[in-house]
Amino acid sequence: MTEHRVNWLELRSLCQELMMKEGMREEDARICADNLVDADLCGVESHGVSRMTNYMKRLRTGVVASRGCCTVTKEHGSSLLIDGGNAMGMVVGKFAMDRCIEKARENGCCFAAVSHSNHFGTAACYVRMAAEAGMIGIAGTNAPPNLAPWGSSEKYMGTNPIAFGAPSFHTPVILDMAPSVVAMGKIILAARLGKSIPEGWVVTKEGKPTTDPVEGQYGTLLPIGGAKGSGLAIFMEIFSGILSGAAVGPHINHFWNDFDHPQNVGHFFCAVDVDKFMGLEAFKKYLEQMIGEMKALPKTPGTEEIFMPGEIESRKRQKRQAEGLVLPDSVYEELKALSVQYQVDFTI
Amino acid sequence: MTEHRVNWLELRSLCQELMMKEGMREEDARICADNLVDADLCGVESHGVSRMTNYMKRLRTGVVASRGCCTVTKEHGSSLLIDGGNAMGMVVGKFAMDRCIEKARENGCCFAAVSHSNHFGTAACYVRMAAEAGMIGIAGTNAPPNLAPWGSSEKYMGTNPIAFGAPSFHTPVILDMAPSVVAMGKIILAARLGKSIPEGWVVTKEGKPTTDPVEGQYGTLLPIGGAKGSGLAIFMEIFSGILSGAAVGPHINHFWNDFDHPQNVGHFFCAVDVDKFMGLEAFKKYLEQMIGEMKALPKTPGTEEIFMPGEIESRKRQKRQAEGLVLPDSVYEELKALSVQYQVDFTI
Repeated sequence: MTEHRVNWLELRSLCQELMMKEGMREEDARICADNLVDADLCGVESHGVSRMTNYMKRLRTGVVASRGCCTVTKEHGSSLLIDGGNAMGMVVGKFAMDRCIEKARENGCCFAAVSHSNHFGTAACYVRMAAEAGMIGIAGTNAPPNLAPWGSSEKYMGTNPIAFGAPSFHTPVILDMAPSVVAMGKIILAARLGKSIPEGWVVTKEGKPTTDPVEGQYGTLLPIGGAKGSGLAIFMEIFSGILSGAAVGPHINHFWNDFDHPQNVGHFFCAVDVDKFMGLEAFKKYLEQMIGEMKALPKTPGTEEIFMPGEIESRKRQKRQAEGLVLPDSVYEELKALSVQYQVDFTI
Repeated sequence: MTEHRVNWLELRSLCQELMMKEGMREEDARICADNLVDADLCGVESHGVSRMTNYMKRLRTGVVASRGCCTVTKEHGSSLLIDGGNAMGMVVGKFAMDRCIEKARENGCCFAAVSHSNHFGTAACYVRMAAEAGMIGIAGTNAPPNLAPWGSSEKYMGTNPIAFGAPSFHTPVILDMAPSVVAMGKIILAARLGKSIPEGWVVTKEGKPTTDPVEGQYGTLLPIGGAKGSGLAIFMEIFSGILSGAAVGPHINHFWNDFDHPQNVGHFFCAVDVDKFMGLEAFKKYLEQMIGEMKALPKTPGTEEIFMPGEIESRKRQKRQAEGLVLPDSVYEELKALSVQYQVDFTI
């Protein structure tokens, strides 16, 4: 398979330019491009520029509002209810977390619930914003169904991620986790490659364990820790959907193949200003001490280094920013086709 | 094994009276007794009155301050930094969540970080307080080490629970989950009974998988979802310990066998006022609709009913409040011995 090593800044410019061609404001297009390219930099390619063709189609068909605006519909000292105006999810997410950070700086913390949004990229992006502002960040979203409530065999909740971020002297500590054992993408990939999958990843439509990915891809993903992961996914529906009035579970329209109905995804964001607790410097110092202790612990056989949450992603980002980002041929060709279609210079 | 069916109100009074004999204020002793008996009512016996002998010893030795007071050391519109004054953890937890709820009622949300506390019972207790006040509740704590950071074979973090609660028309939706696959108690019990345990529960001190609980009990518990559960436990250390200045990981002194050094456990609490988002009634209605849809889904083979998080516990509470609480002989005898020791009428 041919691969293409590209410069991340050039890739970001290309994505930004493309999205502007569909009517997005320069700043909004930059926010989206930034989020997508950052996912690729961190090794979360499922949320990266491989989605560009779909995002462009969503903008073109108008199922996402290219110039959509967020509206704060209810506001108190430390709470925000936000209508995303069907804008791109990354634009909505940045708007919400920016305002959370502002209000947390004043009052100590802020919690925002958001409706009428779309797929917002990685949740890590938003808690990183908070961490870089010297705050604890918490964020989550709901998503189209892929996971059954514990005891059921039918998917209802999304693989709704929850993310946490904390500032540190070095790279922020960032956990961005789905409540399923694996992503559905892994099942689909195994089906394509004709490989079997381990038991415990997925159950069939009938609720039976399977190692056959072909059967598995029509089933439902299994949550981590059984009822625990299922409960986490349910609470992400509550925080993101019920609290904001967005859609929940199977009422969220699909990202990949529905170009007629807005998704009405919900998100939530929370920022907590560390300076209102321990001072930020004291916090970072104490965190550094804890991290140092954990990294010095004995390792399991085969482990070379003990990583903090988000550390692997951060190292990949650094490396790829320096050495270039490798795109698979299919993604490269898709971007090239978009450039031709939208008459944008293909400069990557 | 003889069992004893007791009335929960009488059991609560007995525990309260006993703790007052060690100098606790009437109200504080009631808070602690309530928390312990509620754990038994809900089927979380590990956190119930079976701990009374130890709690009494902790009060007697002064390693917990029987008349300890919480101090708010830093306060903003929606944040609280609290020093627990080495009081009983349940007293500290109730103080903190009460004030979070008050401040969230004013400003929309509030986040509290707490240091110098002790084992606070179940985290479910505090998010239930928030839910009963019409709020989203989030709470967590750190605890003495039982879990290794992913990649290490040595325990560092506690099986730090995170809990979420949401108000509903019926019983609140409540998730209270540890980040480990099982509790250490299960390994110890299997060792006592001479039974083997499934792979995936625990690894040996050397980091090797084991089905031998005798070896396992000196090892470290495995987190749910691998790095995910480990990351959750790390963030509970950050929110509870680093943010508040409490102890973290192995620096937290042991509950069961250290009567010389205060634990210095840290907690965190967050309340989010639903009325500042969707109105509370609209929220409950929408939640009821989602729950109804989930409960009507097809069930996995062998499942009779799909439960929401916290629903099984709530049903047990109702049943046991009506029919009495069954105590194992050992716990009953321990309580009887305490009654003799403290010259309290044994009325259960």
